[in-house]
Amino acid sequence: MILHGYWRSGTSYRTRIALNLKGLTYAQAGVDLRTGAQRSDAFRALNPQGLVPALEVGPEQGGPVVLTQSPAILEWLEEAFPTPPLLPAAPADRARVRAMAAVIGCDIHPLNNLRVLTALRTTFGADQAAVDAWAASWIAPGFTALEALVARDGGDWCFGDAPTLADCYLIPQAYSAARFGVAMDAWPRLAAIVARAEGHPAFAAAHPDRQPDAGPAA
Amino acid sequence: MILHGYWRSGTSYRTRIALNLKGLTYAQAGVDLRTGAQRSDAFRALNPQGLVPALEVGPEQGGPVVLTQSPAILEWLEEAFPTPPLLPAAPADRARVRAMAAVIGCDIHPLNNLRVLTALRTTFGADQAAVDAWAASWIAPGFTALEALVARDGGDWCFGDAPTLADCYLIPQAYSAARFGVAMDAWPRLAAIVARAEGHPAFAAAHPDRQPDAGPAA
Repeated sequence: MILHGYWRSGTSYRTRIALNLKGLTYAQAGVDLRTGAQRSDAFRALNPQGLVPALEVGPEQGGPVVLTQSPAILEWLEEAFPTPPLLPAAPADRARVRAMAAVIGCDIHPLNNLRVLTALRTTFGADQAAVDAWAASWIAPGFTALEALVARDGGDWCFGDAPTLADCYLIPQAYSAARFGVAMDAWPRLAAIVARAEGHPAFAAAHPDRQPDAGPAA
Repeated sequence: MILHGYWRSGTSYRTRIALNLKGLTYAQAGVDLRTGAQRSDAFRALNPQGLVPALEVGPEQGGPVVLTQSPAILEWLEEAFPTPPLLPAAPADRARVRAMAAVIGCDIHPLNNLRVLTALRTTFGADQAAVDAWAASWIAPGFTALEALVARDGGDWCFGDAPTLADCYLIPQAYSAARFGVAMDAWPRLAAIVARAEGHPAFAAAHPDRQPDAGPAA
């Protein structure tokens, strides 16, 4: 498999975590969002939408196919490589993990990604402080909602004592929050999971700074 | 089951479609987003995040449990009530349908919903024209991406000749697009599916205007 992504993209990061948790080997092809490489003809031939990530899957894993959209890729990983599971067994529990993931995947991340922040600057003249405040205004209620869900269902991780899809979403969003100047102090359960992930090989290997296309820290 | 939603909410609308496609009977409880009812103590007792939809599931269907986040609810419906299926059988095909859904669920809808547009007005002084232009700026590339996916995999519906999760997402987004003044002419395959849905009982019964809490057309 070849993962086309960007070191700092939250959706690429969550995909790397899931691949690592499944113990899969994959190559990486960097798509530099800062130079617009996602809009190149070469990348659009893989993903006409021009967004990362895209996962090229070879025939030995059920392809050839190019999978796009990280929520779809993560569900595919769970179906194609069921062990270790990233969703619990009972349908209602699976819904709870997916709801945690959607809090981040639908209610936080889409509002804070690079193309949206660029649009705020271009359309409304937002400066860095306004962009940071905008991002924080979606991170805070989302993390507060997730903290409550983790209080009910969490253990060592967001749901129980093994990593699930919810943790694949949380860790990149916490990384992004730090870049916007949002500290995790208000969400102690989430902060504990973020700290735990730092010591977990699958999460640690997925960190942006450890990717082949990583640039200097901003 | 009791669906707590709002007639014009796209995420409530997509949930109604899926419930109807599965042939399920459910009661509805309206949560008036215009008056902030989603932030009431009564609703937050059901869903602390204060967002619609929330699906109350009784013991006869695997509860009692309150499910939140429409992507999680739709996946739960597919697992708990597999017939008729809203996802194809092959993992790669399932990933393609979920990618179509995510184009709308992650790349369009989160940027256009009521709380985000309210924030644009409040934070950046956006007027109606600016709000409409903002919404259109996310609808257009998203629908163009989806049109290409449907060109590859679609038939009578977004993926093949039976409705899938992708159609549950598309129809409410097209309804929303019309409210922002975005015509579907640029996406003829999507427009044909929208027209087909008007004549399909499950989609027609889910239309905002036919809900018990429907108000006058704006």
